Amino acid sequence: MDIFNLAAGKRRLLIIGGGFAGLEVAKHIDDQKFEVVLLDRHNYFTFQPLLYQVATGGLEPDSVAYPIRKIISNRKKKIAFRMAEVEAINPIDKMAMTSIGVIPFTHLIIASGSLTNFFGMTEVMENALSLKSITDALDIRSFVLQNFERALLSTDEQEKKRLMHFVVVGGGPTGVEIAGSLAELKKHVLPNDYPELDLSMMEITIVESGKNTLSVMSPFAQRNSKKQLEEIGVQLLLEKQLVQYDGFTASLKDGTLIETSSLFWTAGVKGNTLSGFSPDVIAKGNRFSVDEYFRLNGFENIFAIGDVAAVQSGVHPMLGSVAVQQGKRLAKNLNRNSSNEWKPFRYKDRGTMATIGRSRAVADLNFTHLKGFPAWLAWLFIHLMLLVGFRNRLIVLINWIWNYFSYDKAIRLIIRPYKKKS
Amino acid sequence: MDIFNLAAGKRRLLIIGGGFAGLEVAKHIDDQKFEVVLLDRHNYFTFQPLLYQVATGGLEPDSVAYPIRKIISNRKKKIAFRMAEVEAINPIDKMAMTSIGVIPFTHLIIASGSLTNFFGMTEVMENALSLKSITDALDIRSFVLQNFERALLSTDEQEKKRLMHFVVVGGGPTGVEIAGSLAELKKHVLPNDYPELDLSMMEITIVESGKNTLSVMSPFAQRNSKKQLEEIGVQLLLEKQLVQYDGFTASLKDGTLIETSSLFWTAGVKGNTLSGFSPDVIAKGNRFSVDEYFRLNGFENIFAIGDVAAVQSGVHPMLGSVAVQQGKRLAKNLNRNSSNEWKPFRYKDRGTMATIGRSRAVADLNFTHLKGFPAWLAWLFIHLMLLVGFRNRLIVLINWIWNYFSYDKAIRLIIRPYKKKS
Repeated sequence: MDIFNLAAGKRRLLIIGGGFAGLEVAKHIDDQKFEVVLLDRHNYFTFQPLLYQVATGGLEPDSVAYPIRKIISNRKKKIAFRMAEVEAINPIDKMAMTSIGVIPFTHLIIASGSLTNFFGMTEVMENALSLKSITDALDIRSFVLQNFERALLSTDEQEKKRLMHFVVVGGGPTGVEIAGSLAELKKHVLPNDYPELDLSMMEITIVESGKNTLSVMSPFAQRNSKKQLEEIGVQLLLEKQLVQYDGFTASLKDGTLIETSSLFWTAGVKGNTLSGFSPDVIAKGNRFSVDEYFRLNGFENIFAIGDVAAVQSGVHPMLGSVAVQQGKRLAKNLNRNSSNEWKPFRYKDRGTMATIGRSRAVADLNFTHLKGFPAWLAWLFIHLMLLVGFRNRLIVLINWIWNYFSYDKAIRLIIRPYKKKS
Repeated sequence: MDIFNLAAGKRRLLIIGGGFAGLEVAKHIDDQKFEVVLLDRHNYFTFQPLLYQVATGGLEPDSVAYPIRKIISNRKKKIAFRMAEVEAINPIDKMAMTSIGVIPFTHLIIASGSLTNFFGMTEVMENALSLKSITDALDIRSFVLQNFERALLSTDEQEKKRLMHFVVVGGGPTGVEIAGSLAELKKHVLPNDYPELDLSMMEITIVESGKNTLSVMSPFAQRNSKKQLEEIGVQLLLEKQLVQYDGFTASLKDGTLIETSSLFWTAGVKGNTLSGFSPDVIAKGNRFSVDEYFRLNGFENIFAIGDVAAVQSGVHPMLGSVAVQQGKRLAKNLNRNSSNEWKPFRYKDRGTMATIGRSRAVADLNFTHLKGFPAWLAWLFIHLMLLVGFRNRLIVLINWIWNYFSYDKAIRLIIRPYKKKS
């Protein structure tokens, strides 16, 4: 039944997911000690922190993604990568049911990431835009531009307004970054492209249920993000909650109605757990509950890391930096000869940051808080360094320099027009 | 009925198609003398000569395309661009029926380009890959990589061979360029990505009905392209004709059968004419028959240029350089006050070239013939200069330098998996 014909007595490590967490294991695992199989539904790694720039025309999709096979071959690792979707796990018999067949394992690492959480609001799910993948980003890029093309053709003022009103639900880093980029498009790019349109009609609104934007960050960052968002003309609706969206009108809990064709949902994520496990290994936020060695309760050799894992001794945010540290820790533990030598996971928080359009950002670092241009430069530098591959870094750097000095976002192509699901 | 409300007495020039020909008119037309409307189904211009590099992972799609609105705003031209498809022309009442409504005109320029010609072979059309647009190129990129992912999973030797045999029908520049790029992938890129596959099983075959590859070029170019193709391991089947392809087996006229999952059809193009005209304005190759001022027979102010036009005094090949020269000539003629001052079109042939993978090419220039590395450098330089936009040039140049020194083609992402139509 094994599609790889594992030799008897060999140990096979199956890694599910080629994101920050899974790839970090692949990079550090000792391929002499395990036969390693890595699965992902895509043949590339997605650098999620820059997806919003793809969605708003600042970067090419190909420079924020990197072929997984290349990461493996660069390191001369003996790892069998396969493009596949995992349907279920049989944790007792130690087998993964996948789109390419059954894969038995002795050790399993689940690093399947997270999904957008619409909290059961089906209508919102069907009509909202969300940003988790390269295809999402390309769909958003097409859709935003299509709205302006449509607004040009419309003779109905109400429809025009609706097409040019962008509502972002969720005031976390992703929401703030999308809103900031849209504000930049409004100010610098769209007036040149659409001289026939009155761009003052374009509106950008953030709807946030909490008292502040960037609630995960410091009060300093919250205060300054609010100020900077207002400066660039983003409307903030704080302590408001979306309850319905039919593709035309967003309804808030307090009865407010907002006419909008484009609603971005960034207000919820949940772990992308796999079926086959009993509910008692699932923690809050639909994440696998794991100990500080990433072991699922009751299993010796089944681990979960990254967004899909909640380390019970101290739950960490769904961030790339957490995933990377966890992947590295787990690989190092597995490389030891005995589990007695394993070290427990301790997260080292190096800070959080968010950009708010051109030259504006906030950053909470270990030693200080930054805002405005210095925060923005720090953000640029750190994200450039985190990108995989020298070519990608170079292309992204050139695009950023280009965008900065030309006040332009060059990549405004509607390659595949986007149709909403409903 | 006019969606633009043309003022009485004004002249409206409607340009259909934002390719080489249509854009050249837009660039040179006097926007004081005409109210100009430009239509294209895409919001971007496609630089077709480099599409094959997108299809084979050497370049990003975004660097061989350029937003049409940006071309217009860069030149500060008053031109109304709309993304639209033209359904038919009423040449008598001077109206275009389009997906966005009826557009009346006083002057019409048809620059709608060309389509792939399958000569009525429906089964070939349904199963072959063709390369006319950015989406075609992305589909091919996905499909080629998907075949290797599938070959990895297959335990059937015949299926493996079929997945790794690439057949290119047509030995013109496009066919030669695709075959050359595939040979490069075989030699330098795929062995690193697929260490588990025996890449010597990968075959690339050109099927050409004529006696030579590059039949439009000089005997020198023909001879040398043949030699260079053989050097890089491309099989040439000359004087052979494809008659059928069901997605698995290609059948040639002489009875030869070739097992292949990927058949590229580059053996025919035809003009993309518009409905509404009588058959007597259509010439060979489904192109509009025009005089040397690009006027359709019997019409004063209806013109056709580029691939869709056949100038009867001397039919020109479907090339970007012809389209550009025609667009410029027509714009200059229309800018004059009287048609008595018009100049007839004379094509200035500056030469033809084709690349055959890394460091190999052939070029027929006015003053000399080149082959190998010098021809390849000439090809690179000329195509870089023809690209629109400094950002695109820079990004393409970096990619080329990168690809050359790393022996790599970095952009190997299956962003949207491709399914054949049938």
